[in-house]
Amino acid sequence: MKDITSEKLSLIIDGKCSNKNILIDNFSSLKSSNESSISFFSDRKLIDDLKNTKAKVVIIKKEDVDLRKGDWIIVADPYLAFSKVANFFLKKNTFKPSIDKNMHKGLNTNISKDCYIGPFNSIGDNTIINDKVFISSNISIGNNVEIGEGSKLHPNVSVGNDVIIGKNCEIFSNASIGTDGFGYAQDSNEEWNKIPQIGSVIIRDNVDIGANTTIDRGAIDNTIINSGVKIDNQVQVGHNCYIDENTIIAGCVGIAGSTRIGKNCKIGGAAMILGHLIINDNITISPGTMITKSLSKPNIKYTAIMPFMEHKKWLKLASKLREK
Amino acid sequence: MKDITSEKLSLIIDGKCSNKNILIDNFSSLKSSNESSISFFSDRKLIDDLKNTKAKVVIIKKEDVDLRKGDWIIVADPYLAFSKVANFFLKKNTFKPSIDKNMHKGLNTNISKDCYIGPFNSIGDNTIINDKVFISSNISIGNNVEIGEGSKLHPNVSVGNDVIIGKNCEIFSNASIGTDGFGYAQDSNEEWNKIPQIGSVIIRDNVDIGANTTIDRGAIDNTIINSGVKIDNQVQVGHNCYIDENTIIAGCVGIAGSTRIGKNCKIGGAAMILGHLIINDNITISPGTMITKSLSKPNIKYTAIMPFMEHKKWLKLASKLREK
Amino acid sequence: MKDITSEKLSLIIDGKCSNKNILIDNFSSLKSSNESSISFFSDRKLIDDLKNTKAKVVIIKKEDVDLRKGDWIIVADPYLAFSKVANFFLKKNTFKPSIDKNMHKGLNTNISKDCYIGPFNSIGDNTIINDKVFISSNISIGNNVEIGEGSKLHPNVSVGNDVIIGKNCEIFSNASIGTDGFGYAQDSNEEWNKIPQIGSVIIRDNVDIGANTTIDRGAIDNTIINSGVKIDNQVQVGHNCYIDENTIIAGCVGIAGSTRIGKNCKIGGAAMILGHLIINDNITISPGTMITKSLSKPNIKYTAIMPFMEHKKWLKLASKLREK
Repeated sequence: MKDITSEKLSLIIDGKCSNKNILIDNFSSLKSSNESSISFFSDRKLIDDLKNTKAKVVIIKKEDVDLRKGDWIIVADPYLAFSKVANFFLKKNTFKPSIDKNMHKGLNTNISKDCYIGPFNSIGDNTIINDKVFISSNISIGNNVEIGEGSKLHPNVSVGNDVIIGKNCEIFSNASIGTDGFGYAQDSNEEWNKIPQIGSVIIRDNVDIGANTTIDRGAIDNTIINSGVKIDNQVQVGHNCYIDENTIIAGCVGIAGSTRIGKNCKIGGAAMILGHLIINDNITISPGTMITKSLSKPNIKYTAIMPFMEHKKWLKLASKLREK
Repeated sequence: MKDITSEKLSLIIDGKCSNKNILIDNFSSLKSSNESSISFFSDRKLIDDLKNTKAKVVIIKKEDVDLRKGDWIIVADPYLAFSKVANFFLKKNTFKPSIDKNMHKGLNTNISKDCYIGPFNSIGDNTIINDKVFISSNISIGNNVEIGEGSKLHPNVSVGNDVIIGKNCEIFSNASIGTDGFGYAQDSNEEWNKIPQIGSVIIRDNVDIGANTTIDRGAIDNTIINSGVKIDNQVQVGHNCYIDENTIIAGCVGIAGSTRIGKNCKIGGAAMILGHLIINDNITISPGTMITKSLSKPNIKYTAIMPFMEHKKWLKLASKLREK
Repeated sequence: MKDITSEKLSLIIDGKCSNKNILIDNFSSLKSSNESSISFFSDRKLIDDLKNTKAKVVIIKKEDVDLRKGDWIIVADPYLAFSKVANFFLKKNTFKPSIDKNMHKGLNTNISKDCYIGPFNSIGDNTIINDKVFISSNISIGNNVEIGEGSKLHPNVSVGNDVIIGKNCEIFSNASIGTDGFGYAQDSNEEWNKIPQIGSVIIRDNVDIGANTTIDRGAIDNTIINSGVKIDNQVQVGHNCYIDENTIIAGCVGIAGSTRIGKNCKIGGAAMILGHLIINDNITISPGTMITKSLSKPNIKYTAIMPFMEHKKWLKLASKLREK
């Protein structure tokens, strides 16, 4: 990594530094820092790591600065500031354009020359791969797909027909985008009659989608993931969902079909949201919580976690709850 | 799509129409309909969509027909009727047979000439791919596998050795069929001794398996998914499970090993069923519910959801439950 | 399979047999046994299977031996003994070395000659594949990876840059190892600023990782899975987790970032563990239980399951809990 002074780093993160002339050449956790590292402290549970760190400079909040013996930069949000420092040190997603000859390219498909297309990718007909797209390996992309400038697909991703992916998106390994929604009507003989799923998936700009996550295509209209949404691993998004800007969804969440989630929501890991609900903006849902009704008031945190306890105690509680 | 009169559509869905001579050329949701669309109404929550729809004809229940200003077709189950209309307009899974030369085909493997086999598929030894099978791309199929007529495999699916898949099945992207069950016995030194998993998976006819779903092979005997079962995305089915006809399983469900589930059950999303249980026919399990004992009475709905509430209120409830 | 006498089998499993001269040529479940099978009995719920089995010899506990009419071998742990018998009958992971020419091999990458490398695998630069590694098909392995002797990767696995996998590991289909952790800091305009994830994943020896499981790379330091850990399907392990020796994790579990789990823990299916927690050794967590605090006392079982009940009864309970 490159050298930079603590003063210049302070300017990047809008901070106030204890000493302007320190040379920094890497960023690190408190634990793994060396004598030319910058690190950050924002969680008082890690106070021992702060005491023992070798980091030359620590990004820290004003109210914590007395806990720090060495040099510091004070900022309002150390974690956010650290993300900017880290992105400064790392070169942004640069790659040498190249297109592996071991690929399948369909008819009327257009791939920009400055893309990277690795080995064993299958790209269908009438598809557009825009500038600076990175397609790793063993990826399957259907017909009539468009992938926006600067987006990156990791290995073994599957993208169904007609899906549109915006700019600067990142889709991680083994994600399935645009598979059929789960729609069946029961016949008089108990058999399930499939409803054709002819909608698609539209993913706007700056969306991240985690490994092994599934986003179903719409039944008739589209499933839409709006700009700036971040989705973690192992998440299921049902058909015809609409997820609005900058909502963040942690791992193992399930969202059933036709649910609308507002802007800037925070959905905790393994939360579940039933179908056909409307969740307002700025809602926080705790991990493991099942939401069974629409949430119309904004700016509220909802929770439904059974508190854990020693198994013997739980046995008693469970029997009391059953008796109620 | 093709043109058809409202009278002919009524005959297909066994309905009664307000006007026999309307020409329809597409099906759609109420929201996205145009002046030659047929749509359906079955959920009173969508009353505004019904009022504002441009659809020329709406499939509707008798008791709702007064809510509809324009033309209609009355049926007993509008959702089921709509699925039949949709399937009428769409051509059923037709494809031009072709076998990509960029494939691996093992010894003594037999692939019917009217199949579609896309690029970068690996098919092992002694395997039979029957008529009209569609194998997309980047799929791995093991040795001694048989895939029945008319079945369709989406990209990046993995099918282990000895698995048998019936007719007209559909397996979505990144599903893993026939990976080892999770069986270990603990040694005196705390290490885990693997139990070989030498059973397989048998999937009967008309089964759908969702994206990123996993179906483990049996330890000794087989894991069996019976005809007409529909399984959504992100589901885990443990070794030696038996799931009987026409049971439907929503997303994110986990079913532990050796559990038997009866016919026509409905398992809600993210429900969990422990191992070695027997679930009778026609049982409904609510979303997010953990089933810890066998359910021997049929036709019952079971639930175990912690009700969600504002976080502050939950904190008080949690402390009361801990005190019990 | 090969023939062996009951006496020799008794020696392998340190048991006492009813009759030394019985010839056995296969192992099986009680239900599927034939007249030359050995099987085992350890769960009294399966008493009918024991009564009706055709197995020639049954491995059984001393206290259950009166339930068995035919021949037996008495051991302390029949399930463990059976795993040893099964492994005796099966040849251990033998394969004929071969390297398919339909692969991508990066620069300075070293693949031992006695490996099996199937079709359509992509292996990046500066990577080392050690002796007797089995790489199935449609697998993507990044740059600077090392895979230890005797490890086996199933189809469609993705292994990110810099990941190190130890000896005799097995990674099942569609698993994603070393994808980016989920780290974002929120900007003043509500947008999410990605924290670069520059740590990696280290997997030690004898680790099994299930199908469609995801193990995130660390943000700065590494995510570490210690020796002998067994992880089932559909599990999510967040960035910077540390999971210590011989811990076993059932399907659908989620573990948020930076959590440390001790040795010999048993995590039940669909359990969830929040981030930045420390779980001591020998802890048992029941299925479906969410752990929200560190667990410092060892050797305890924790549970948090809402008990299931008929839906009508649950409606009453839910309303009572909401009123509290």
